[in-house]
Amino acid sequence: MDRFQELLGKKSTLKGWLHGIRGSNKFQFLTIRSEGYLFQVIAEKEKLGEENFAIIKSLSQETSVIVKGVFVANERAPGGLEMYLENFQIQGESKDYPITPKEHGTDFLLNHRHLWLRSKKQLAILKIRSELSFQIRNYFHERHYTNIDTPILTGSVGESAGTLFSTEYFDLGKAYLAQTGQLYLETAIFAHSKVYCFGPTFRAEKSKTRRHLTEFWMVEAETAYLSNEENLDLQDDFVRTVIQRTVNRCKHELEILERDTEKILSYVTNSFPRIDYDEAIGVLQKKGFEISWGEDINAEGENLITEEYNSAVFIRNYPKAIKAFYMKENPQNPKTVLCADLIAPEGVGEIIGGSEREEDYEKIMAKIREEGLPEDGYDWYLDLRKYGSVPHAGFGLGLERLVAWIAGLPHVRECIPFPRMMYRIHP
Amino acid sequence: MDRFQELLGKKSTLKGWLHGIRGSNKFQFLTIRSEGYLFQVIAEKEKLGEENFAIIKSLSQETSVIVKGVFVANERAPGGLEMYLENFQIQGESKDYPITPKEHGTDFLLNHRHLWLRSKKQLAILKIRSELSFQIRNYFHERHYTNIDTPILTGSVGESAGTLFSTEYFDLGKAYLAQTGQLYLETAIFAHSKVYCFGPTFRAEKSKTRRHLTEFWMVEAETAYLSNEENLDLQDDFVRTVIQRTVNRCKHELEILERDTEKILSYVTNSFPRIDYDEAIGVLQKKGFEISWGEDINAEGENLITEEYNSAVFIRNYPKAIKAFYMKENPQNPKTVLCADLIAPEGVGEIIGGSEREEDYEKIMAKIREEGLPEDGYDWYLDLRKYGSVPHAGFGLGLERLVAWIAGLPHVRECIPFPRMMYRIHP
Repeated sequence: MDRFQELLGKKSTLKGWLHGIRGSNKFQFLTIRSEGYLFQVIAEKEKLGEENFAIIKSLSQETSVIVKGVFVANERAPGGLEMYLENFQIQGESKDYPITPKEHGTDFLLNHRHLWLRSKKQLAILKIRSELSFQIRNYFHERHYTNIDTPILTGSVGESAGTLFSTEYFDLGKAYLAQTGQLYLETAIFAHSKVYCFGPTFRAEKSKTRRHLTEFWMVEAETAYLSNEENLDLQDDFVRTVIQRTVNRCKHELEILERDTEKILSYVTNSFPRIDYDEAIGVLQKKGFEISWGEDINAEGENLITEEYNSAVFIRNYPKAIKAFYMKENPQNPKTVLCADLIAPEGVGEIIGGSEREEDYEKIMAKIREEGLPEDGYDWYLDLRKYGSVPHAGFGLGLERLVAWIAGLPHVRECIPFPRMMYRIHP
Repeated sequence: MDRFQELLGKKSTLKGWLHGIRGSNKFQFLTIRSEGYLFQVIAEKEKLGEENFAIIKSLSQETSVIVKGVFVANERAPGGLEMYLENFQIQGESKDYPITPKEHGTDFLLNHRHLWLRSKKQLAILKIRSELSFQIRNYFHERHYTNIDTPILTGSVGESAGTLFSTEYFDLGKAYLAQTGQLYLETAIFAHSKVYCFGPTFRAEKSKTRRHLTEFWMVEAETAYLSNEENLDLQDDFVRTVIQRTVNRCKHELEILERDTEKILSYVTNSFPRIDYDEAIGVLQKKGFEISWGEDINAEGENLITEEYNSAVFIRNYPKAIKAFYMKENPQNPKTVLCADLIAPEGVGEIIGGSEREEDYEKIMAKIREEGLPEDGYDWYLDLRKYGSVPHAGFGLGLERLVAWIAGLPHVRECIPFPRMMYRIHP
C-alpha cells in the first residue's frame, strides 16, 4: 500500500471524485478520492485565478473531477502528502448526494449501500477484505494446495436441511444452494491430497444477529492423511499468517478505522491455546455461567472463554450429539468427536469449525441413517469410504468474521460489499 | 511444479493411492498417486521378501497405501524419477473400483465424477485450472485492483430475464442467482476506481453445446476513467500474461494432456488483432459464410474468423440491437456500441465479452425503458449516473473456456470439478 509514497514529489494527475471540500476565500482544501484513497488537494485563488477558484469553490460533493498538480510532503495530510492544484477538469456533476458528512442511520446507509461504499471507513474495510482474500489464496498456493471450486447448485444436502435456499432445476426437480463445499472437497483429496475452496455460501437462517449473513464467503481446506491435531496446527499457522500479512499491508486502512495494529498482532504472535470442550464447560461453570455438559456454547459463553485466555481459543472435542454426522468419533471418549472450533476474542466468536472426518464406511452409514438423511443423495460421498479410504481432516473459516476481527467491527454486515440478510436483498 | 525435483535422491514417504500396477514375478511396477502427481515405485521380490511381495502383487486399484523408499533418476518414468520400495503400509482397501483402465463412456464418467477426478488427465486439467485461477487473482492484485465480491442473490436482473434461476427469499419474494457481477462492480469503481470479482455465475439456459454450463466461474474487471480501446489493452495484456504464467508453471500437466506448450505460447507472444464487426462480416461473406450485417456471429462464424488470423481476435463494435442495454453508443456509428468480444482459436470461441459502459443518465434510462426492464430494480444502478458519472469500461472472462483453450480440450465440462448442465446436477 505505498500508493502515497509513489506520488511524493511528483507532478501527478488524479482521476477521481470530490469527497469533501472546505476552506476560505483564498484557499480551498479539497479531498479527492481516487483508487480507494483520499488525497488532500490545495486550491489557491492567487494561483488559479478568480474564475477557476470560484468554480472549485462551488463544486458539490461527489462531482467527478480530474486534478493535476505537484505532491509535496505534509505530515498532517492523509498519507503524509498533499497536492498543489495547477489545473482541473470536471467530468460529471453531482446534485444532492444523499450521504452527507452528518450522521445517518444504518438502515438508511444499507439502503444506499451502492453509494455508502464511497465512504472513508467503507473504503478501508473493503480494502482489508480484498487483501485478506488474496493472502488466504496465497497461503494455500504457496503450500501446493489445489484450488477446487465446489458447486453451488447441489442435489444433496450439506448440514441442516431446514436452512436451504432451493431453485427449480430444469426437469430434475429441486436444486439447493450449497451451505458448504466440504463433501465435494473430500472427493478431491483422493485426487490431489491437499485442496481448498473459497467462495460464497448460503444459509436460509431466520437469524438476525450481528454475526450472521444469508450469503457469506467461506474458505475451506481439506487434507488427506491428516489428524485432528495436525489440522489444528495447520489452522493455527494459517490464521496467524494471513492476519500478520494483511495487517502489515493494511496499516493505512487500520489507522483510518482507529484499530490498534499492535493489539491485533499481539493476538497472533503465539499459537492459540487448545482446550477441550469439557474444560471449557468447567471454566464457564466456575464463572457462574449456566451450562451443563452436552449443551452448545452460545455467543455469550464463547466471549467468556476468550476473555479468560485473552486470546483466540480452540475448543476441541464437542459432544457428538451437537455436531455434524461426518465428524469422527473420539476413540478416547466416544460421546465426543475429534473436532475443534476456533473462537476469536473481542466478541467476534466462532471463526472456524473443523474436524477429522469419519473414514469408516459402516460408521458413517450408521450416522446417516440415525439422522434420517437421504441415503441415495450421499451415494457418491459414501463411495469415498469404499475405494481407498484414508484418515483426513478439514476446516472452514468465515471470511466476514475474520474481517470483522481484524478491522475491529461489531457487525459483519459492513465486511461484505452487498450484505444479504433476512430483511435485505436490495440493492 | 518442482515436486519431482524436490524428491530426487532422497529417502521419502509417499502417502497416496495405488493408481495402477503391472509387472512380473520378480518386479512389480506400482504407480502411486500422491498430491495429484503419479510416481513410479518399484517393488523387488528379492528385497521385500516373498510374503510382502505377494501382498504388493495382490493390491487392487485405488487401495490407499503409504510407501517408503529412495527416489532415483529414470528419464522414462513420470517426472524423471522412480522410488525403490523399502517398506509399505496399507491404509484402506478398495474392491471393484468402477473406473478401470479400459475405455468408459462420458456419461458413465460424469456419473462417477467424484471418482473420475482421480484419473491422470483429470488431475492435470484441474491443476491447470487451479494455477490459472491463482494467476488471474495475482494479476489484479499486482495492479492494485480491489477484489469486490459481488452478490449471488440479487433482487434485480442482470442480462436476460429468461435464463435465471430463482429462489424464495423469506418474506421478500423472489431472489435471482446472478448472471454477472458487472452492475455491482460498477458501483464499486466510484469507491475504488479499479475493481474485480471472480466467482460462480449462473445461466438457466436450455443449451446443450460443448461450450455451455449452467454454473461456471467468471472473472470480471471494471475500471473508472477507461475507454473501450484502453479496456482492450488491459484485456490483451491480462489474457496473454495469465496464459504465459500458467503454461510455464504447468509444463508437466500439459505434457500429460499431450498439449504443445510452444503452440499455446506462440498464440500469446504478440497482441491479438482487433477488427471491427463490419470487417468480420466482410471476411465471413468473402468466405461464402451466410451472414448479413446486424446478425450475431455464431460459433461456426467465430471459428472462420480465428482461422483467418490464426490467432485469438478481438471483434469490436457490434450492432447495438444485439448487445446489452448498458453498452455505450459508438459516436462514429450510432448503430453500433463500443464493445468487443475476444474470440479464441481452435474452436474455443468467445472467452471475453467487454464494453465501455453508457455513463449518461438519460441515454441509459431510455435503453432500460426501450427493453422493458423493471425501472425500480435499477434505481441504485441509475444513481451511478447521477452522482459523479465517469467514463468506464469492463469485461468478463469465462474461466472454463480459458482452461479448455490452454488444455486443448473440446468440451468445457471437464474444466470444472463438478459440471452442472441441463441434465446434470449429480453428484
